[in-house]
Amino acid sequence: MTVTLHVCTTCRAGVVLEEDAPRPGAQLHAALSAAEAPEGVQIVGVECLSACSQGAAVALSAPGKWTYVYGRLAPEDAPDILTGAAAYAATTDGLVPWRERPVIFRKQSLARVPPMTLPMEAAE
Amino acid sequence: MTVTLHVCTTCRAGVVLEEDAPRPGAQLHAALSAAEAPEGVQIVGVECLSACSQGAAVALSAPGKWTYVYGRLAPEDAPDILTGAAAYAATTDGLVPWRERPVIFRKQSLARVPPMTLPMEAAE
Repeated sequence: MTVTLHVCTTCRAGVVLEEDAPRPGAQLHAALSAAEAPEGVQIVGVECLSACSQGAAVALSAPGKWTYVYGRLAPEDAPDILTGAAAYAATTDGLVPWRERPVIFRKQSLARVPPMTLPMEAAE
Repeated sequence: MTVTLHVCTTCRAGVVLEEDAPRPGAQLHAALSAAEAPEGVQIVGVECLSACSQGAAVALSAPGKWTYVYGRLAPEDAPDILTGAAAYAATTDGLVPWRERPVIFRKQSLARVPPMTLPMEAAE
């Protein structure tokens, strides 16, 4: 099943920029789009992930899986982001074993949200 | 359609606590559970929303809607959180008009993630 890597394209990453200056979010999106997306991962740009003070930000989601949001990312993180996205795509529930997560995913999680199909008792 | 208000029950909200001290997340969950849930809103406790430094945290999600995560919340925010959850439940896409959002939702968003059903072109 294909997972989606949403990339905030409008993020200023907390930096004051000239109006026509390239946005850090757009630069991250460009770096990710220029790389080869791993199998089962689609990269989708989105205007604002509402993580403005902690950007640039990306989110990983797929039906039936936990959603993860990561922040404080830069274009040079693109290879690690794609490695982490591939590991996420390979799971059934979105939960990648801790040691198999890229360091940026271990240290720069902004939030995670249970899948909508998670039975209530399992979330307790 | 019922929306889910996930509440992190394990959150320490960045505070160093004695092992048996009540967790801020559990206190927020208790305050929300003690109030009457708005129609169409189910409150579900969850262990860790991975927003540890920005907790206590909650997430609003439902099939076909944008997911929202909010942080830096306290038990006294419970009424506003439930008001915001009711407004979210009343939308078709999760996008509540800015002026109708509680102030804590305007100012304490940690992240939002597009619905999985969002067509790619709409997210660009």
